[in-house]
Amino acid sequence: MNNPQDNLSEVLKQVADVIAARKKLVDAGDQLESSYVVSLLTKGDDAILKKIGEEASETIMAAKDARHAISQGFSDRPQSLVNEVSDLWFHCLILLAQFNLGPEDVLKELQRREGVSGIAEKAARPK
Amino acid sequence: MNNPQDNLSEVLKQVADVIAARKKLVDAGDQLESSYVVSLLTKGDDAILKKIGEEASETIMAAKDARHAISQGFSDRPQSLVNEVSDLWFHCLILLAQFNLGPEDVLKELQRREGVSGIAEKAARPK
Amino acid sequence: MNNPQDNLSEVLKQVADVIAARKKLVDAGDQLESSYVVSLLTKGDDAILKKIGEEASETIMAAKDARHAISQGFSDRPQSLVNEVSDLWFHCLILLAQFNLGPEDVLKELQRREGVSGIAEKAARPK
Amino acid sequence: MNNPQDNLSEVLKQVADVIAARKKLVDAGDQLESSYVVSLLTKGDDAILKKIGEEASETIMAAKDARHAISQGFSDRPQSLVNEVSDLWFHCLILLAQFNLGPEDVLKELQRREGVSGIAEKAARPK
Repeated sequence: MNNPQDNLSEVLKQVADVIAARKKLVDAGDQLESSYVVSLLTKGDDAILKKIGEEASETIMAAKDARHAISQGFSDRPQSLVNEVSDLWFHCLILLAQFNLGPEDVLKELQRREGVSGIAEKAARPK
Repeated sequence: MNNPQDNLSEVLKQVADVIAARKKLVDAGDQLESSYVVSLLTKGDDAILKKIGEEASETIMAAKDARHAISQGFSDRPQSLVNEVSDLWFHCLILLAQFNLGPEDVLKELQRREGVSGIAEKAARPK
Repeated sequence: MNNPQDNLSEVLKQVADVIAARKKLVDAGDQLESSYVVSLLTKGDDAILKKIGEEASETIMAAKDARHAISQGFSDRPQSLVNEVSDLWFHCLILLAQFNLGPEDVLKELQRREGVSGIAEKAARPK
Repeated sequence: MNNPQDNLSEVLKQVADVIAARKKLVDAGDQLESSYVVSLLTKGDDAILKKIGEEASETIMAAKDARHAISQGFSDRPQSLVNEVSDLWFHCLILLAQFNLGPEDVLKELQRREGVSGIAEKAARPK
């Protein structure tokens, strides 16, 4: 009965739930199931953090390519950038799981900042 | 009447709406309102991308600090890491807005991957 | 009487010597002299590491811009890329100084790898 | 007859010469020789840039680990950090070669900044 918008709101939680289930397997020493997430969680912090750096770099590269494509008349809503941000967020979810955290912690923090300041942007303190 | 969980699901959209409103001001040449998001959007792509690189680095640093703190008996659910991932996602939302995209595009892509594979992780192709 | 090539070989050492002198001031608690390096060394590890992440991102951005410029007939030896790699290496020299290391340690390691393998590239283990 | 110090000054040039020779092979369509550098140059800009982002991340991680090790009484001249900076510079040399540049371009820029300002640090403009 959920409409698509409802479903969309729950995507982060759904993906995080899958990751958390894999984390339980790894924590229990059960690495029999071969999967990308299990492999990354088993390798540990540094492997995950390396991916964060890599996906951030790829996001930067995709944005540069997108801008040049737009300047040549291509789509101004580049799917390649969506893909890279998705990769980055996906690996952030893995990182959060690695520290027993989830997307709700990030969403709560973003909500708190919005609440505190009345506007979201004030919350992101320029440094 | 919304329960907290409902609110949480909508946080990304709410923050993105605020950013999108700022983007409209900037696109219309109206930069009178001084704010962090307006300032960043006015500076353009490279300023935003530099922040993505910086926030990813700070996420890495926070995770390293958190692990060392945990090894000394401190909390295993480190708020400092939540803060940095929040900063990273917030700047991703600004980047998406800069390209006329929003969090729903990323959530749809994550949902698509989950749908295609049955499990989220398969979707994140190891590279 | 030194020829330019000799001078060039010593540039890293010369820059590192300047940085090391600033480091001594900071370590001695003498931060009276206001300078960029003194300011960064005083702020400590995280400020320096943030710059490493930022300059690496800017190197990536400069390379993307350079490639697109080249594809439009501009110089294939882009100075903007040279500038960003210079920034990156300069901040690496500050990072090394922060840990009582210098460029000679990096050069020795590169030389060792070259010596071990007979060819430089083998030394850089793909990961 | 060269003393070690002379040799050390020339290391960047020696490594760059090896890379440039590989670049010539790749540019000539001769990719028969299997090597790490040939493989990376053949894959092109994005593969190299991804490595820059990755090695910068690993430098950050090594520095964080080194500081925590130092705080527990271990060496304050950490070889692991030297290794990661070496990896980063090595991949910068590959990136430079990809754009028909070499370490001498970076060294000249660092020298120019030093010459302009009298002190190296002024040259690195804080941004």
